[in-house]
Amino acid sequence: MFREYDVIVVGAGHAGCEAAAAAAAMGSKVLLVTMNMNTIAQMSCNPAMGGVAKGQIVREIDALGGMSGIISDKSMIQFRMLNMSKGPAMWSPRTQNDRMRFSEEWRLALEQTPNVDFWQEMAKEIIVKDGRAVGIVTSLGIEIKSKAVVLTNGTFLNGKIHIGDKNFGGGRAAERSATGITEQLVSLGFESGRMKTGTPPRIDGRSLDYSKMEEQKGDENPSKFSFTDTRPLDKQVSCWITYTNDDVHGELQKGFDRSPMFQGRIKGLGPRYCPSIEDKINRFAERDRHQIFVEPEGWNTIEIYVNGFSTSLPEDVQYKALTKIPGFENAKMFRPGYAIEYDFFPPTQLKLSLETQVIENLYFAGQINGTTGYEEAACQGLMAGINAHNKVHDKEPFILKRSEAYIGVLIDDLVNKGTQEPYRMFTSRAEYRILLRQDNADLRLTELGHKLGLASDERMKKLVDKKADIESLIQELKKFKAEPSVVNEDLSTLNTATIREKIPVINLLRRPHLGMKEIKSIDQQLEKLIGKYSPEVQEQAEVHIKYEAYIDREQKLAEKIGSLETFKIKSDFDYDRVKALSSEAREKLKRIKPETIGQASRISGVSPSDISVLTIYLGK
Amino acid sequence: MFREYDVIVVGAGHAGCEAAAAAAAMGSKVLLVTMNMNTIAQMSCNPAMGGVAKGQIVREIDALGGMSGIISDKSMIQFRMLNMSKGPAMWSPRTQNDRMRFSEEWRLALEQTPNVDFWQEMAKEIIVKDGRAVGIVTSLGIEIKSKAVVLTNGTFLNGKIHIGDKNFGGGRAAERSATGITEQLVSLGFESGRMKTGTPPRIDGRSLDYSKMEEQKGDENPSKFSFTDTRPLDKQVSCWITYTNDDVHGELQKGFDRSPMFQGRIKGLGPRYCPSIEDKINRFAERDRHQIFVEPEGWNTIEIYVNGFSTSLPEDVQYKALTKIPGFENAKMFRPGYAIEYDFFPPTQLKLSLETQVIENLYFAGQINGTTGYEEAACQGLMAGINAHNKVHDKEPFILKRSEAYIGVLIDDLVNKGTQEPYRMFTSRAEYRILLRQDNADLRLTELGHKLGLASDERMKKLVDKKADIESLIQELKKFKAEPSVVNEDLSTLNTATIREKIPVINLLRRPHLGMKEIKSIDQQLEKLIGKYSPEVQEQAEVHIKYEAYIDREQKLAEKIGSLETFKIKSDFDYDRVKALSSEAREKLKRIKPETIGQASRISGVSPSDISVLTIYLGK
Repeated sequence: MFREYDVIVVGAGHAGCEAAAAAAAMGSKVLLVTMNMNTIAQMSCNPAMGGVAKGQIVREIDALGGMSGIISDKSMIQFRMLNMSKGPAMWSPRTQNDRMRFSEEWRLALEQTPNVDFWQEMAKEIIVKDGRAVGIVTSLGIEIKSKAVVLTNGTFLNGKIHIGDKNFGGGRAAERSATGITEQLVSLGFESGRMKTGTPPRIDGRSLDYSKMEEQKGDENPSKFSFTDTRPLDKQVSCWITYTNDDVHGELQKGFDRSPMFQGRIKGLGPRYCPSIEDKINRFAERDRHQIFVEPEGWNTIEIYVNGFSTSLPEDVQYKALTKIPGFENAKMFRPGYAIEYDFFPPTQLKLSLETQVIENLYFAGQINGTTGYEEAACQGLMAGINAHNKVHDKEPFILKRSEAYIGVLIDDLVNKGTQEPYRMFTSRAEYRILLRQDNADLRLTELGHKLGLASDERMKKLVDKKADIESLIQELKKFKAEPSVVNEDLSTLNTATIREKIPVINLLRRPHLGMKEIKSIDQQLEKLIGKYSPEVQEQAEVHIKYEAYIDREQKLAEKIGSLETFKIKSDFDYDRVKALSSEAREKLKRIKPETIGQASRISGVSPSDISVLTIYLGK
Repeated sequence: MFREYDVIVVGAGHAGCEAAAAAAAMGSKVLLVTMNMNTIAQMSCNPAMGGVAKGQIVREIDALGGMSGIISDKSMIQFRMLNMSKGPAMWSPRTQNDRMRFSEEWRLALEQTPNVDFWQEMAKEIIVKDGRAVGIVTSLGIEIKSKAVVLTNGTFLNGKIHIGDKNFGGGRAAERSATGITEQLVSLGFESGRMKTGTPPRIDGRSLDYSKMEEQKGDENPSKFSFTDTRPLDKQVSCWITYTNDDVHGELQKGFDRSPMFQGRIKGLGPRYCPSIEDKINRFAERDRHQIFVEPEGWNTIEIYVNGFSTSLPEDVQYKALTKIPGFENAKMFRPGYAIEYDFFPPTQLKLSLETQVIENLYFAGQINGTTGYEEAACQGLMAGINAHNKVHDKEPFILKRSEAYIGVLIDDLVNKGTQEPYRMFTSRAEYRILLRQDNADLRLTELGHKLGLASDERMKKLVDKKADIESLIQELKKFKAEPSVVNEDLSTLNTATIREKIPVINLLRRPHLGMKEIKSIDQQLEKLIGKYSPEVQEQAEVHIKYEAYIDREQKLAEKIGSLETFKIKSDFDYDRVKALSSEAREKLKRIKPETIGQASRISGVSPSDISVLTIYLGK
């Protein structure tokens, strides 16, 4: 009934979709197994992609040849580049998306991928032979053979939904949970754990009073995620901001005695940085308000996502508290928020390729590895799909370094440090933030994606042209001499020092307040010269020129750390001599006595900055 | 947490959506309760609306002010007017629809209906007070009050899915079943039963070889369902026709020993006129092939619906048999077909308003009443929504006569005759087929819909104008005299008798082979005169003129039967004297001894034609 597949992907969320698309694009015969073909790529939580650190991941996925950026662009209803007032390392693209479109675009994209077949049913078992995954068994008992299996079960493994003092089995609102897989994997020697996540109530947008909220519009000149030719929006939908207050908190507190979290009914740990509203009130008792971000769920739907109000308190408590929020006085709920507990497998049981250590040719991606977030899931799916393909085609694993991509940081963190609570990406987790920018994801990764056979020739050609253009523009800016008589008046107006003699315009561009935009305004010839290049090329050249010193320094550090990976530490080394180490790191280093810097860096509690300190000390 | 609603509608399929939309449009405060807001108006079976008798129903729903016609038009990918070679009573519009668009358009339409609120959860109990339904209790235990409740549970009540020798609870593929309602209603004195329906496997369209099938294109000049200003398609998607054969039948037969139907595991009766493929092979053993109608599921999706191949045989048997169908040699399945058993309530427990006899203000619509089909469900939902609204606003029930609408036929059949197997509409069920045409649904029903406050003023104005135009055109055609010298040459070419003197052109139009199109071709002045009127008006005038005699006769019969409703039959009347009665009717009439023709007509087994015979006999 089924051919033998190269790769079976179980689950069709963000991770599963990327895994299937990647392996198939590289040439594997893929079967995507999902419990429901109508919920492919469902945005289970908020209708948005990207944001700080996460936006960088989407750009990286796109640069490698993944789909999340393209799908996000096709379904976006708003685009914002966050943190534009900060340095380019912090610039972070974010889209609001039409939930239905997002799901539909992913489904259609997968349908148009020739090597992807579909099967709608629950997978309940992995077929293991000689320590290798060689297929799955479905709930109907059908055996489907494959050379590798990628599990992306999300919150479905023994999923249990909590609302107040009620709880019931479920993988997501209105969807069944999945059973069998955890029990089998544990019997095969895997360690499993429980995690928890949550989601806010959904609201009828017609019942809100937006005049009591702050409007948050999209960018005036919206950009997009993908480096391909997807199109930016020419109209956008606004989000809205409002705040909780003492009344809201008071109503919520009335339900604490029925809270599944506070009463100990939920065993799994929740995402620290995406806490429920009751958790926020509890942990930050000093704060008298919390921001509520009101997100529309699409172009036309009236459904509203109440970001910041995730909760598992009883539905009547949720409702009463909601109606105390300015603008929500007459709010109507579509459904209550809830918490969901699910099984995960501590990711220290994985290799850096996301293959499991216990069973060969079995890969895990997404929440099953203890992460949270669409982008975190999607990039793991992409990497698992790539590596499953490589494995069954006898190719080397594809591993991204911490200095190459946030994706590398994420997987390295998971595999080497594990996680006790849902792992979310932050820029602070990356030691090479200046290198890992959203704007240069293509320059960093497209060549790698192309070598894999994933990023298309077209992408590669675009990259080569872009690189050449950037270099050419930089050279032109080096050569072009600004004339005092031409530029000084404008420089004064721009509140920057005038020049006394001709200087290369590149030197002006290094000044803090002068960007490419200003440089173009001081000289018509320059405007013409720069104007020949695309905005992306202009931006890259500007970033490159202005941040060259920082970039070079990080690049060198990365190389040094790379080379120090095997740098030995004497077994009698006295860590007390390194004053700048954190006390946790010192304590652990003294106890574990790592043999190399590489090993030291992988000890949980030893941070990248501890390693920098140690490296500098040992380097003396 | 909830206001008190006028009407709570449980279920958001075709019936529930129409019920909610109608009651809300009439002014009721409505809560639509659905287990999953992502599956509102899901086409659970084939992606098509209308067809013979069913297309008439969609037109009637539309004429009354319901939504199914508009939603179908907005989501159609193909339109065909079936039976155009037959008389206008048989013309039947049918659309193929984009499954995702259909569902989305319904959801957006309901969202834009001001009086409809939404709640996503399972209803598990009706709140009954003093014999009246006054709300529901949800699975979370929330009590929501209302003045009336409409149940449209589809196949969800204790739904049980069968595939071969496996079965499991479920309301639809990948969806949970609903529990609690049946048990409560039975405890309140309702009789419940089990029915069964089924659906074919879904197929990957990329795996089919269409060169081995016959293409079925949409109409060259496609029309549409709605009398409003929805737009016909300017491009269409084709369907495909292929056939089973002995090999297919042979493969299927190999699985008969694992068939849940043949082995007695399925207790409920299935739809006789929409049988599973194994049932067809079994019942029509003499037929060596059955038609398979290959329907695309949308504009872009590759998913294919295999109409005619509904089955609950084991999935491996389904697959092997499928691959023996020409064009399906390499078919890939997305999911197997299955049978589903579910609870229904024999509709003889209803009033003609669809209110239950046992509990006041409780209405049933759709499969819960033992019907099958989207259109059957939708029109019941519409009527239940209208009547629930009327009831809570102290207005009279709205009941359509058998001579007014297929909807009247359907509900009269259900309530007065009940049904042992899923009830589907056929033209043969209607005794006034010439009256109940698809083309005149607006002329029959829009005024009624407008009086209800459901059909908009705009619709009503359109109707009034149309009526006036039809009358005006008919008058003009009566007055206009055809001249022999002008028309005789063309009449000869059209193979119809020439005329010797001036005659009213209306007389020509009554000739069998002359339609409006031909009439326009014989005289330029006539062409100009007729051309002033819209195509719909021309069509109506033509049908009216050509079929006037038949229409009048049926109209008179309907009036007569209406007046005979209370016509007494003597208790000693000898039915053996009426030779033309069917033997079943005679037997039942002799046993039951009805007191009036009306009562006689409602005896199961006594057909409309038996009643005609009896009426004519008694009328002597």
